[in-house]
Amino acid sequence: MVYHFEAIQAFSRSALPRLDIVATAVFAISGALQAAKARQNIVTFAFFAAVTGVGGGTVRDLLMGAPVFWVHTTTPMAVCLVMALLVWFTPTRWWPHHAIDWFDGMGVAAYGVYGAAKAQAYGVPWLPAAVLGVVTACMGGIFRDVLANVPSIVIRPELYVTAAALSAGCYVLLAACGVPQLVATTIAFAAGFALRGAAIRHGINLPAYRRS
Amino acid sequence: MVYHFEAIQAFSRSALPRLDIVATAVFAISGALQAAKARQNIVTFAFFAAVTGVGGGTVRDLLMGAPVFWVHTTTPMAVCLVMALLVWFTPTRWWPHHAIDWFDGMGVAAYGVYGAAKAQAYGVPWLPAAVLGVVTACMGGIFRDVLANVPSIVIRPELYVTAAALSAGCYVLLAACGVPQLVATTIAFAAGFALRGAAIRHGINLPAYRRS
Amino acid sequence: MVYHFEAIQAFSRSALPRLDIVATAVFAISGALQAAKARQNIVTFAFFAAVTGVGGGTVRDLLMGAPVFWVHTTTPMAVCLVMALLVWFTPTRWWPHHAIDWFDGMGVAAYGVYGAAKAQAYGVPWLPAAVLGVVTACMGGIFRDVLANVPSIVIRPELYVTAAALSAGCYVLLAACGVPQLVATTIAFAAGFALRGAAIRHGINLPAYRRS
Repeated sequence: MVYHFEAIQAFSRSALPRLDIVATAVFAISGALQAAKARQNIVTFAFFAAVTGVGGGTVRDLLMGAPVFWVHTTTPMAVCLVMALLVWFTPTRWWPHHAIDWFDGMGVAAYGVYGAAKAQAYGVPWLPAAVLGVVTACMGGIFRDVLANVPSIVIRPELYVTAAALSAGCYVLLAACGVPQLVATTIAFAAGFALRGAAIRHGINLPAYRRS
Repeated sequence: MVYHFEAIQAFSRSALPRLDIVATAVFAISGALQAAKARQNIVTFAFFAAVTGVGGGTVRDLLMGAPVFWVHTTTPMAVCLVMALLVWFTPTRWWPHHAIDWFDGMGVAAYGVYGAAKAQAYGVPWLPAAVLGVVTACMGGIFRDVLANVPSIVIRPELYVTAAALSAGCYVLLAACGVPQLVATTIAFAAGFALRGAAIRHGINLPAYRRS
Repeated sequence: MVYHFEAIQAFSRSALPRLDIVATAVFAISGALQAAKARQNIVTFAFFAAVTGVGGGTVRDLLMGAPVFWVHTTTPMAVCLVMALLVWFTPTRWWPHHAIDWFDGMGVAAYGVYGAAKAQAYGVPWLPAAVLGVVTACMGGIFRDVLANVPSIVIRPELYVTAAALSAGCYVLLAACGVPQLVATTIAFAAGFALRGAAIRHGINLPAYRRS
């Protein structure tokens, strides 16, 4: 495992790590909302927020052999706990319809981009880097749904993994074409979130398997 | 990742690692009892005992970047297999009512303390250290329930994550106040186990989310 | 964690790593077939193929502290995607009955052997090495079933974990007796696959727990 220290340092100094905190926060909200739906107590709220918020990024860091991002610093976990409190004290009716899905969708687009970008900074080739983006994006939601004992979001009948793949794939492609990082990040995030948003609102999907 | 070698060595020489074996053993029993409930064969018994017994500690070690505790030594896995045999040869009626829950509860209290203590010995700050205690405590039971295809124990309508958080939180707080390790460990374990025991026996819970 | 560099190098130059690709491919097929059963789209096919294909090996590498086998190279992930396409374009009726189980069974036998062998090359003692073989063999199928929200394959009423344990156990035993690696690998793979095949075809099982 060769670490590319300069690439990693440049990555750490860029604006991208802020995406990590944004993705953690919106996933944490979706986790706490799931706990609200299941009528849990405040501690279980915090547990759902933490597992959903940091779950995807944890898997990403373990897979690429990086130190897990929330273990050696306090901020990400504090963000999860604050989001849990926020959801606890907000009446359900203040949240938009399908709020779990919308916050989850923001997280998917953000982590699709960020997972792929962090993997590339650590010297992972483009195909596994894009896959790491997809995995980072989808795992938080999978953990949340397995914990809550509801069917996992990836098998719902509207686009989900595809939106994650669009975010991660766009970023890897644009970065390979030499597009500046901020532009590549913005386009890739917007594309993934727009696709997932359309899927939530209109239930769109790719053609399903129908051979017999 | 800075390893604090002296703290780690002092930790290894203390009495705490025995808690790890105790937690492994009681979780392994709860896993084997779940396999008994599902009328599995002896090999699946051993699988459930092993996954439940070492599952939480495995996640903890991976997250903090420590070598996984059962991979480079034989004892923990041997303990799991012996517990599987023990459960296999014991008639169900000899076990107390809710035996899965009681053994699981001992494991939760022991791993809540031990997970937090090991994380602090590895230089993890107090908030993520306490969270690692909670994760260590809850993951074994979650793996057991997901494997057995029953709703995960964390969403049951009585305190669970809260007991883990009490153990881990107590230990971190008492250690920060300079209380000697053995005393801190004993109080934190007793507090978590008493709370989980009360939850099992009387179904107590914190107020659930009720806003609309 | 002492790495045994010469043993690891000899292992990398042997024929065994081909087993890893074979196991990845057959597990990826079983994952894609599960996606076909659930009438998913092509991207979710690829996701199921990837998670099932590399899932077990990923857990194995994380547990033994080795770099995850598909992250720093492109082949394993490319194999998963090709298998997903293959299943997508093949009519369901061309597959044999219980095709998911048969491909899964090949993967179980191959990963049982390979997981144990890789662990021993990394200096893991025989008992945890055999357990790592079993875990590698069973995790891909467990991930596939949890994702698809069907009861996990390990609790089905016919031998599964036992076949994985036979493969891994045979290999560890034969290797300890000094049997040449190719012979040990072949016998261990054949034994595990034959047992799992008999279980699929005739529903055989060990006696279940019946004490009351």
